[in-house]
Amino acid sequence: MAKAQQVTVVGSAALDTLITPHGSVEDILGGSVSFIGAIGGLFVPFNIVSVVGDDFPMHEYGFLRERNVNLDGLEIAPGKTFRWSGKYHDNMNIRDTLSTSLGVFADFQPHLPVLARDAKYLLLANINPELQLQVLDQMSAPKLVAFDTMNLWINAARETVLEVIGRVDIVIVNDEEINLLTGESSLFAGALKLTMMGPSYVVVKKGEHGSILVGKKGVPFICPAFPIADPVDPTGAGDTFAGAMIGYLAATDDVGFFNLRQAIVYGTIAASFTVEDFGLNRLKSITIDDIEERFRLFRAMVEF
Amino acid sequence: MAKAQQVTVVGSAALDTLITPHGSVEDILGGSVSFIGAIGGLFVPFNIVSVVGDDFPMHEYGFLRERNVNLDGLEIAPGKTFRWSGKYHDNMNIRDTLSTSLGVFADFQPHLPVLARDAKYLLLANINPELQLQVLDQMSAPKLVAFDTMNLWINAARETVLEVIGRVDIVIVNDEEINLLTGESSLFAGALKLTMMGPSYVVVKKGEHGSILVGKKGVPFICPAFPIADPVDPTGAGDTFAGAMIGYLAATDDVGFFNLRQAIVYGTIAASFTVEDFGLNRLKSITIDDIEERFRLFRAMVEF
Repeated sequence: MAKAQQVTVVGSAALDTLITPHGSVEDILGGSVSFIGAIGGLFVPFNIVSVVGDDFPMHEYGFLRERNVNLDGLEIAPGKTFRWSGKYHDNMNIRDTLSTSLGVFADFQPHLPVLARDAKYLLLANINPELQLQVLDQMSAPKLVAFDTMNLWINAARETVLEVIGRVDIVIVNDEEINLLTGESSLFAGALKLTMMGPSYVVVKKGEHGSILVGKKGVPFICPAFPIADPVDPTGAGDTFAGAMIGYLAATDDVGFFNLRQAIVYGTIAASFTVEDFGLNRLKSITIDDIEERFRLFRAMVEF
Repeated sequence: MAKAQQVTVVGSAALDTLITPHGSVEDILGGSVSFIGAIGGLFVPFNIVSVVGDDFPMHEYGFLRERNVNLDGLEIAPGKTFRWSGKYHDNMNIRDTLSTSLGVFADFQPHLPVLARDAKYLLLANINPELQLQVLDQMSAPKLVAFDTMNLWINAARETVLEVIGRVDIVIVNDEEINLLTGESSLFAGALKLTMMGPSYVVVKKGEHGSILVGKKGVPFICPAFPIADPVDPTGAGDTFAGAMIGYLAATDDVGFFNLRQAIVYGTIAASFTVEDFGLNRLKSITIDDIEERFRLFRAMVEF
């Protein structure tokens, strides 16, 4: 068994106010690094790099410390924490942003502590691509870099996004983003086009319809979603997917295509827990054994 | 190896006029029994029961005879063949019916020849549920009956549809139909509810998102679709799916849950060929070896 490696994740820490068909919650823990740390810490030590305001309820991150999540790279700046508010439709694939208050996140400048710089695995969660470039410049010698973004940055800073894509190993996108980036309406054609721009692999997230993994050559991997009959809150599902994926890769320290398939399945399973309750509630209550058990159940659901 | 069994299929034979983003075609061979016979005949002998008008280009069914499809149950009645015309949107999951002319199909009364009555496998394709009951009454002793319908019949003849469902083994539905039948918006909850109404298994077709197979107990089977980058015409994909599924079951004469999973995958593969060209064009050109080859490729795409 290979030696488990550490992961560094750079992204947002936020307080979310959410309305879903199942109810509403106010100012709960959110942001990509919260979800990624919560799930990833079950696999290997994670180094979080982000910023919160002095209004942030830091004690609520206590469970992250217990999961081997290092918060030395989490800056506490004078001012307000980034807040996002959204409302999900009955079809929870559709959501409206009600408000966004960047607060201290507007002036975020990532400064990586030594441990974070030396990590072999890096996850660039969705932030301004200029900051993602700064992070890449600070890293010592990462073995694998995974990257997430959103339509906002592709539209506002396309060239910078493409520059980041040229420097990473795995790009994680949804159908809208792949269409914006490549002009292709076919996910497979778009994913293949993206691999020509630098990354070895492209992961396309399709929400309740699963995900696909495409490399520069060879057959793609098609992964259905784990079925959840009555999802409560989809917030963070994509971040959880990415966090478990890179967490499993770091735990096994194997970036081959077959191991990446396993990592995608772990991401799928992790995301299925997230949507079962609001925010981090479900992730807080699970163990690695719960993940392994659902992994086995999933295999039983897809084998033929 | 079990002895291969025959299949009887009762459904529509039609002439289709189609408009898709890839072009348009006029009065081409269509209807459920055409697609089902074309694919099913690659697995085992099929007995077709349907009706066409005296304007039907019977010579175009020549390739069906070569595939062991028995046309003795295909009545030729004075009058016009059933015609359907539809237009597919850019998102080919959505289609508008432009016109429907029932012709001789309006007075269709299924009369099963002896061979058709004695078949061990029966596929009730989408027709008036009153006729489906008549077919069930004529069958000698089928080992397995699979059933398809559409929203039209569920709305217009709900009680009769439910009566048929109570007498079959496998119900094949899409998301809209399962919602109409059970009131459930969750596919899994709806499918489970349907199994309480009689059938041992429910297959839910999700088009480009694959299908699921749910039994009265045990874990469900989740099957993604085989990816086709640029589908030309989705007409008949669902019929082809059902035809290959029951064809494989009859060829192996094994109706156990694990073999049913394999049958679903054969259905998935068969449907992926259908959408590659208009109408029956692609199905006409394939062999069972083509199906087996794509089956192996599919396995390579989903294993982890």
